[in-house]
Amino acid sequence: MRLRNVKNANEIIKNSKYIINNPQELKGKFYTLFPKQQFKTEIRIEIGMGKGDFIINMAKAYPDINFIGIEKYESVLVRAIQKLEAEKIDNLKLMCLDAIELNEVFDHEIDTIYLNFSDPWPKKRHAKRRLTSFEFLSVYDDIFFGKKKIIQKTDNIILFASSLETLSQYGYILKKVSLDLHAENTFNVKTEYESKFSGLGFKINYLEAEKE
Amino acid sequence: MRLRNVKNANEIIKNSKYIINNPQELKGKFYTLFPKQQFKTEIRIEIGMGKGDFIINMAKAYPDINFIGIEKYESVLVRAIQKLEAEKIDNLKLMCLDAIELNEVFDHEIDTIYLNFSDPWPKKRHAKRRLTSFEFLSVYDDIFFGKKKIIQKTDNIILFASSLETLSQYGYILKKVSLDLHAENTFNVKTEYESKFSGLGFKINYLEAEKE
Repeated sequence: MRLRNVKNANEIIKNSKYIINNPQELKGKFYTLFPKQQFKTEIRIEIGMGKGDFIINMAKAYPDINFIGIEKYESVLVRAIQKLEAEKIDNLKLMCLDAIELNEVFDHEIDTIYLNFSDPWPKKRHAKRRLTSFEFLSVYDDIFFGKKKIIQKTDNIILFASSLETLSQYGYILKKVSLDLHAENTFNVKTEYESKFSGLGFKINYLEAEKE
Repeated sequence: MRLRNVKNANEIIKNSKYIINNPQELKGKFYTLFPKQQFKTEIRIEIGMGKGDFIINMAKAYPDINFIGIEKYESVLVRAIQKLEAEKIDNLKLMCLDAIELNEVFDHEIDTIYLNFSDPWPKKRHAKRRLTSFEFLSVYDDIFFGKKKIIQKTDNIILFASSLETLSQYGYILKKVSLDLHAENTFNVKTEYESKFSGLGFKINYLEAEKE
């Protein structure tokens, strides 16, 4: 994603009320960030939230569920924060973090991981970098509470085929698969990328996978 | 598949040396049909072989493996027999049978099932008729020897998504998935349908699933 640099991005991020600046200190206690703590472990995260359309609209659609958006790049994260300035959403927090470090920050307190239009790393020699590689699935094991649930959307068929293989081989069961999500009559919160590219005729692949 | 009727199809089929006319009597002993019996249980079947291009060319490509092609409609099966008239292939037999009756005929003696461009039955209320529905998977349980192996090709995304779900939920592991088989540099014997439609730009979906 190419973005012009936002001046003082670092400052804007640090000062946002949506940002978690001290994730290590919250390990096992992320639920304390939210006013609605009735379901301590019902926190859903999006890894690679980009400019935030999906996670912001999910938080609005499900006010009783708590969400944390995770993004590796500050230059991207700042865009989501700018969108949120005028909003008042108390079930959403954001964090700047590399996904490979997720288990240093969370401790068995996540309900669902959303992976939307992640970098496909289409070359075979880069397969380990895909967010559904065995390496990442092993990291996720440490952050889920109870049943593990991963929901993925992508227009990239190499990433999608690879995810189906790794998830299945790692013990996940495919609860739902679609090779043309928008043709189905189901509730779907779109990402920026999805809005743009599905309009051009790209088909959106979708999966819901669960592991006990 | 629309075909003009072949005159005397029934006679032609009955008299072909490739046809198994008495499948019930061979239950548990299908290996005796083949000169190469060194691997008694290494019989691979194609369900819905159509005009036979796939299974005929597989039998030629793998002379040490025994194949049985299964087709429900005599009007289709007779086309495969006509193709075979000039051939001498001793590791291939054909059979007219409805797939739901497979376990009345085979008894734990099949190694692999091929499902190529099966009828997709795209309407939800017909999902049970798909060859990867739970109903059919349960029938297949009785015919496999040892590890169960299903290999599917289809251009239909509803059937393919449905197969990924049912196979995974039934305990199969997805060993290999592709959403564009012809883009990959792998050995692939084409069906008639595949040759025709992939030339028109349709993408071929492929899966290999295994269950202990």
